[in-house]
Amino acid sequence: MSGAAFALDGRLAADTRHVASLALCEVLLMNDARFAWLVLVPRKAGMVEIADLAEDEQQALWAEVNRAAAALRTCAPCDKLNLGALGNIVRQLHVHVVARREGDAAWPGPVWGSGAALPYAPATLERLIAGLQSALAS
Amino acid sequence: MSGAAFALDGRLAADTRHVASLALCEVLLMNDARFAWLVLVPRKAGMVEIADLAEDEQQALWAEVNRAAAALRTCAPCDKLNLGALGNIVRQLHVHVVARREGDAAWPGPVWGSGAALPYAPATLERLIAGLQSALAS
Repeated sequence: MSGAAFALDGRLAADTRHVASLALCEVLLMNDARFAWLVLVPRKAGMVEIADLAEDEQQALWAEVNRAAAALRTCAPCDKLNLGALGNIVRQLHVHVVARREGDAAWPGPVWGSGAALPYAPATLERLIAGLQSALAS
Repeated sequence: MSGAAFALDGRLAADTRHVASLALCEVLLMNDARFAWLVLVPRKAGMVEIADLAEDEQQALWAEVNRAAAALRTCAPCDKLNLGALGNIVRQLHVHVVARREGDAAWPGPVWGSGAALPYAPATLERLIAGLQSALAS
């Protein structure tokens, strides 16, 4: 509640690399080379449901989701964007933005619960993060 | 493109029952008693990605998603709301709003791709639709 400081959920932290801090959200990249997959986490302690964010925060969230989607489209050409806010396992409010390709490891199913992550090669990961940072900044 | 009239995708039509027509979206209920599951479909012909909607349309979409979420919370108490826009199979832009309960048929995984729908008993379906219509109107 009031006064509690925001701290990124440990599982989200373990599964991702930090890409950028936008006005509302931390932007994280899932360390899973099977999908170009961003996770946006509003820095709001104790928040679980989008519907419970204030209206201006919701607008900021969706604007940042659009920025993330545009960055993915720039860095990881895709056939379809997937957007999801589930939170059944990690309750801390977070929004997934995923660049899907026909024939990818989960196609046409959802990425959530679709097997084990395949970590990026280190150089590929650094290059993708740099590209996303550049795209998010533009 | 311009001039094309909106027509609901045949698969969405087959899997759902109509609940309400809001300013932007058709609100549909999945005929699947395993989950209280609404689908919102903006009446925009040829639209695939949320990011490609005009900004005011995106704001209208998210406001209607909030109304749908509130109606679900009223009619189908849940432990978590799930929100998704995938479109890997049905390309017509649509947003899922699902009331999840711990231990439901797909918990804690996503509802998408989680086995066959279990149709509602007719009386239960009519009662739920009436409740959702009432909640959406209030």
